[in-house]
Amino acid sequence: MNPPATVKIREVGPRDGFQSWPELVPTDKKLEVIRSLMAAGVKEIETTSFVSPKAVPQMADAAKVMAAVPREGVKHAALVPNLKGAQLALEAGVDQLMVVISASEAHNMANFRRTIADSLADLEPIFSLAAEKGVEVFGATAVAFGCPYQGEVPEADVLKLVAAYVDYGAHTLGLADTTGMATPPRVESLVSQVKERYPDKDLMLHLHNNRGTAMTNLYVGMMAGATIFDTALGGIGGCPNVPQASGNLATEDVVYMLEEMGVETGIDLAALIKAARDMEKILGRMLPGQVMKSGPRDPKLASEICGIH
Amino acid sequence: MNPPATVKIREVGPRDGFQSWPELVPTDKKLEVIRSLMAAGVKEIETTSFVSPKAVPQMADAAKVMAAVPREGVKHAALVPNLKGAQLALEAGVDQLMVVISASEAHNMANFRRTIADSLADLEPIFSLAAEKGVEVFGATAVAFGCPYQGEVPEADVLKLVAAYVDYGAHTLGLADTTGMATPPRVESLVSQVKERYPDKDLMLHLHNNRGTAMTNLYVGMMAGATIFDTALGGIGGCPNVPQASGNLATEDVVYMLEEMGVETGIDLAALIKAARDMEKILGRMLPGQVMKSGPRDPKLASEICGIH
Repeated sequence: MNPPATVKIREVGPRDGFQSWPELVPTDKKLEVIRSLMAAGVKEIETTSFVSPKAVPQMADAAKVMAAVPREGVKHAALVPNLKGAQLALEAGVDQLMVVISASEAHNMANFRRTIADSLADLEPIFSLAAEKGVEVFGATAVAFGCPYQGEVPEADVLKLVAAYVDYGAHTLGLADTTGMATPPRVESLVSQVKERYPDKDLMLHLHNNRGTAMTNLYVGMMAGATIFDTALGGIGGCPNVPQASGNLATEDVVYMLEEMGVETGIDLAALIKAARDMEKILGRMLPGQVMKSGPRDPKLASEICGIH
Repeated sequence: MNPPATVKIREVGPRDGFQSWPELVPTDKKLEVIRSLMAAGVKEIETTSFVSPKAVPQMADAAKVMAAVPREGVKHAALVPNLKGAQLALEAGVDQLMVVISASEAHNMANFRRTIADSLADLEPIFSLAAEKGVEVFGATAVAFGCPYQGEVPEADVLKLVAAYVDYGAHTLGLADTTGMATPPRVESLVSQVKERYPDKDLMLHLHNNRGTAMTNLYVGMMAGATIFDTALGGIGGCPNVPQASGNLATEDVVYMLEEMGVETGIDLAALIKAARDMEKILGRMLPGQVMKSGPRDPKLASEICGIH
């Protein structure tokens, strides 16, 4: 099977990366990173989340960030865990809502402090409000490939949530490997089933690298029909409620691999590497991304961009 | 296409990992790591290399290590870059010789201080000596998927070296991505061609993760017919002559993924994780392996092995 000709890269660093960053990232630094991502050609960004500022102080500036980000043809999404978050996000002028519900009760309770049924009850008003404003809603299922509390998550439980999103008219369906428990066979099986049931819906994968398999899961998921991938500049990120959770796939590593496979992302790798290296300076810690250290394959380019001799 | 039922994992940490470690690792600590690998069920180990102690002081204890390692059904290989190394390795009683020649002149010169022709001239006496002692010779081609000096490496140049190894009767053919320049299409193409030409030879992949693609390259390479994989406990390693080179694939991450795919490695993951965590203490620095931090998928096991709550 051949890979698709093009895919979409959704940058989630400003949300999933900063959310779990141990020091508060100032709003102007967040905006600097977002601007550098846009300059590299990134067209979809999960720019912030509208969650309790008490639970996630890092996202307390959500409305401020949304008010200040340049638009310029880029879609700015916000993650929302409930109706209140959706209301705030829509007021703040987001382009897309990313609704998330966990496929396991234990994780939904730990992450969102409510039952899955309570989360589902919010879908009707969230989708209605979004429709009024002409805002796209992405329906994402967290811990779709395994839960750090419950262990295995039955595929049926995931497919039930996916069906609910479809019923409400979700623009895109997302499967999130929140704590890096996905494996190639699990990704292949679930992606194939969702694509078989809903061939007209775009399928998004959000993969974490806690067990070293994220890039392979992306590869297998793409071959099985997923065409949108959540990644984070420099590979930052993780779930603050899960101890030792590792980062997202690094955007620049994914763009590098896909472009080398002939899959177009529309993103300028050199500019992306520069953005990752600049962000590393802003954050003051080494980030897990690899291509930002080694550079592209071309030795001359690698030397120019990464100072490798 | 389905993955193979079983594969072989060749542990290269004691050679490729320690070789580039910035502080000298004492011989008894090396032996401790090798013993813990054997206790986890690892059956093939690249235990040391017989190279110039001036060029690689870390390997100056090669004969001492070989004299002290337990055998117990485990095959201990040594990397040798030339005839002199092979002679010393055979005297020291290795079970396997890993001969390496680079597919680019620039890399062969930088790494081994000689031309490819000079390296090739050593093959005849090396294979003869090894045959006398009944020792298996693995023929590996370095920078098989790209060279940090030259850039692209023509497949024809790799296939020429592979053909030379076959002519001399190499037990196993190895393709090494010495500085992490391999990509899925390159791996698929080269592995398929080697398997097509030499269907009866085992094909080994040695992959580095400098650009985040190593695990995916392993997956693609396995699907294309490779059945032996070089990995290093904790993901240590890299080429000392290439600045910023990243590590090998972590043995425990590979064993985790393969076993989850139903591919048997014969290795005990829990014991392997323990070995990686013990080695981290011995070396005193955080290692890049992921499963050693997050544990297996099962939350109870992860908690027991990695102390995650």
